[in-house]
Amino acid sequence: MKLLIVGGVAGGASAAARARRLSEDAEIIVFERGPDVSFANCGLPYYVGGEIAQREKLLVTTPERLRARFKLDVRTRSSVEAIDRAAKKVRVRDLATGREYNETYDKLILAPGAAPLRPPIPGIDLPGIFTLRNLQDVDRIKERVDAGVRRAVVVGAGFIGLELVENFVRRGVATTVVELQDQVLPPLDKEMTTPILETLRKHGVSVLLEQSAEAIEAATDGLVVRVKSGERLPADLVILGIGVRPENRLAVEAGLEVGPRGGIRVNEQMQTADPDVYAVGDAVEVRDFVSGDATQVPLAGPANRQGRLAADHIFGRPAKFRGTQGTAVVGVFELTAAATGASEKALRRAQRPFRKAYVHPANHAGYYPGAEPMTIKILFHPETGKLLGAQAVGGAGVDKRIDVLAVALQAGMTVFDLEEMELCYAPQYGSAKDPINMAGFVAAGLLRGDHPQVDVEAVSASEESKRPLLLDVRTPQEFAAGNIPGAVNIPVDDLRARLEELPRDREIAVYCQVGQRGYLATRILRQRGYAASNIGGGYKTYLLFRGPQAL
Amino acid sequence: MKLLIVGGVAGGASAAARARRLSEDAEIIVFERGPDVSFANCGLPYYVGGEIAQREKLLVTTPERLRARFKLDVRTRSSVEAIDRAAKKVRVRDLATGREYNETYDKLILAPGAAPLRPPIPGIDLPGIFTLRNLQDVDRIKERVDAGVRRAVVVGAGFIGLELVENFVRRGVATTVVELQDQVLPPLDKEMTTPILETLRKHGVSVLLEQSAEAIEAATDGLVVRVKSGERLPADLVILGIGVRPENRLAVEAGLEVGPRGGIRVNEQMQTADPDVYAVGDAVEVRDFVSGDATQVPLAGPANRQGRLAADHIFGRPAKFRGTQGTAVVGVFELTAAATGASEKALRRAQRPFRKAYVHPANHAGYYPGAEPMTIKILFHPETGKLLGAQAVGGAGVDKRIDVLAVALQAGMTVFDLEEMELCYAPQYGSAKDPINMAGFVAAGLLRGDHPQVDVEAVSASEESKRPLLLDVRTPQEFAAGNIPGAVNIPVDDLRARLEELPRDREIAVYCQVGQRGYLATRILRQRGYAASNIGGGYKTYLLFRGPQAL
Repeated sequence: MKLLIVGGVAGGASAAARARRLSEDAEIIVFERGPDVSFANCGLPYYVGGEIAQREKLLVTTPERLRARFKLDVRTRSSVEAIDRAAKKVRVRDLATGREYNETYDKLILAPGAAPLRPPIPGIDLPGIFTLRNLQDVDRIKERVDAGVRRAVVVGAGFIGLELVENFVRRGVATTVVELQDQVLPPLDKEMTTPILETLRKHGVSVLLEQSAEAIEAATDGLVVRVKSGERLPADLVILGIGVRPENRLAVEAGLEVGPRGGIRVNEQMQTADPDVYAVGDAVEVRDFVSGDATQVPLAGPANRQGRLAADHIFGRPAKFRGTQGTAVVGVFELTAAATGASEKALRRAQRPFRKAYVHPANHAGYYPGAEPMTIKILFHPETGKLLGAQAVGGAGVDKRIDVLAVALQAGMTVFDLEEMELCYAPQYGSAKDPINMAGFVAAGLLRGDHPQVDVEAVSASEESKRPLLLDVRTPQEFAAGNIPGAVNIPVDDLRARLEELPRDREIAVYCQVGQRGYLATRILRQRGYAASNIGGGYKTYLLFRGPQAL
Repeated sequence: MKLLIVGGVAGGASAAARARRLSEDAEIIVFERGPDVSFANCGLPYYVGGEIAQREKLLVTTPERLRARFKLDVRTRSSVEAIDRAAKKVRVRDLATGREYNETYDKLILAPGAAPLRPPIPGIDLPGIFTLRNLQDVDRIKERVDAGVRRAVVVGAGFIGLELVENFVRRGVATTVVELQDQVLPPLDKEMTTPILETLRKHGVSVLLEQSAEAIEAATDGLVVRVKSGERLPADLVILGIGVRPENRLAVEAGLEVGPRGGIRVNEQMQTADPDVYAVGDAVEVRDFVSGDATQVPLAGPANRQGRLAADHIFGRPAKFRGTQGTAVVGVFELTAAATGASEKALRRAQRPFRKAYVHPANHAGYYPGAEPMTIKILFHPETGKLLGAQAVGGAGVDKRIDVLAVALQAGMTVFDLEEMELCYAPQYGSAKDPINMAGFVAAGLLRGDHPQVDVEAVSASEESKRPLLLDVRTPQEFAAGNIPGAVNIPVDDLRARLEELPRDREIAVYCQVGQRGYLATRILRQRGYAASNIGGGYKTYLLFRGPQAL
């Protein structure tokens, strides 16, 4: 067996190591265009910021170590230029010498990754404009930051963009983010990103939404990014973080099929249309685990998994990639945002039925010091309660709850299962009713009809004359500190005595701070014959939809 | 509907609140023997230590708040003395006045909890000997600590015992723990508690295992605890933390059935043999979710859940308690230990088939600063791979991994599902191959036969002449720093070149530090015809079984 692997980072390196474990006799050659294999892509922003202090920490392994331990023929600075599928060989170019040569294969794994997009705007090739993909990129960026640049513009407020923003701020660089969409972190639903936007602004980051870079110009003291609105942003450093496109040239030129967004088409065994050619990692199109649709998810975990599966299949092991949930997490200053499965906007786009629930719990018992708030949003099927997706934003414990929900999603569990979950509880770790249980209670109460709920954005979006009566059941102090316009205030503890103040012929939308008192008030009202529903997630959810507060 | 609830803490308070949400018209009376309802039992040790500074933080709610919000008739300092099931009434004693009266019911929920055990040894009633159950207990203990006691003896090294130990040490009290078993934290398997024992000793705690308190005597300057070995432990304060027994007197006297360990027998709807009498919380016998056997699990989460379910059933909602996994967590100084499902010793006791796997990962990517090590042990069915239980001990991230495994257990997932889990990965939160994935790889490799493994305790327990050849594949430096007696050292990177040094006619047990290099070495050897297996979890697992190092 002679196995060639194109690309030596996440998927390629995993495939190579797995292949060697399965076969001591196979000839395994890894071609990597860059000088490094298996480096820590996800750590690059933190090297810029200095959190990761030593560059060598970013080298997960080296070509030498792969050779010694796995008996791999690792050829760095080697570019595979073409595939001859009929002859089962590739043409390789040694970038150091320029020499070209052919290498035959029995099986070929393509793991070329994805390349950062560079928009075709005027000035895009000026010096000082960077993308961030590998160690060479990060060296160039860090060199500038170390040299004392004062102003950076980051185009794109996705995961990597915001990680870089945080690290620029940590280094004292005044940073502006330009994002095409009307929110940061586009994979999340907009309202869930409100706290992220607030913390970016709190840390002095200038965030321009619904803007794009139209041109970049050289100025006497650096660059100027001109955005759609006409605003001109001076910068010493411009980062393009607007997404990636699969490196599919080799595959396309070899006649292999790619999807509409350029991802190489593969089956569940990671085989392309040619059964001797596999493809894995950021370059491939995968199946969305929730929707079943084709998608592209450039994440390290699935890439490693796919590399392993391709090697398994080549060496006769059962192998099946189940698709990806797109579980992802990002830290932005003191906050964490994470998600798994489908977002609300993805479900709307696909016109799939769903309901949703919001909870605003603390990460652990409130009576133990240091509890940090979070918001969890879950999306579920309106009849079966099957979990479709989840998002969370807040302080400590966000990643834990999304991991729990990711497993629930993988297992096909419902919101009724969330009610029953037995999770770790001691006061410094969780609550007797964990945030996950609370989300389950709210969602299951909705589906059982015990707890009728309305979505706050539906209530506040409708014309005031058509709105239900808004009933705020918090204390007068809470009400005075901020409320939904048009609401009347009757604290839940007074509600039973003041029922006659409420109309029997009008819908009532109840709310409190997070939904819990509103739930009790709704139960009281409905049992007394009022047409009441609870605004899911309460005033805190309303604030998420209203968007960030002015500082 | 007239509903009486005996006990107003976790299960009782949850039942009362849920009942009111379901019915505005029901008459609901809660009898609580103590002065408080719904206090934070799990926080009590941290109030002693000062981490929770204000006593009122421990009051989750008050009788007044329950009255105002839930229209509950809360009667504190009220002891239910007897149940007359035929007449459907209870006899109540007002502890403040001594007055006795009857109260009728349509439905009755017993939530009396469990009482700390007091062993019948000489001197047990001397002043200065305490159990910890409620706020009155904690007041007495804290008063002593505040007054400057110097020496404490804690009898019992369970969860609450060790939490108190930590908090005594935090307050400068020299503390000795006396434990009957040969390990601390008896719900966990012994080897998993080695790091806990080490950290207790590191913090100056004296831990006496396989010892029991035989007598307590008054001395001129306090107390003396005499233990089985004859050793006499001077103490100003003695805490009994040896377990609890269900408060079943009311139930037993009313002719209701209890299990062999005293737990009130209930069905899946939390009904006793009398369908109008329910029981919930620490007082009841529940079904072990893994084994299906009857058990008792005094935990806050299940108690709350059972209270809720009893109310649901009373008011005509579908309700079914699925049993309990016993998910639990404890912090001991800088370490966390947690578990869910069956332990190895429980499986052995029940003679159920299982295999196990150990991994020793870091909580997040090693290239990001601050990664903390942990050990995860999973237990699974030897044919299907179905998860049976899990334990973890280490630093940050232990609770997250046990929560993930608790959900997997609830869902009936297998070790093959663990391989596929898509969990949060950014360098400060996890790894591209999360500790959970790693545990899945090891266990699945074992079941598929790709990765034959032997248990380290089996190897090191057998006579030296009958042992397999022990092959240490770590570096010479690692080998020199400590190894399993009798092992020979060939680093994995040299193994291919030195195969002829190894016997072809003898079993070889390979090990490295955590199992990963040992896995590769095993693969190399087997493909070359050697009878090799990997010692699961490597040298680190060996050290766990060897027990704590002398300081």
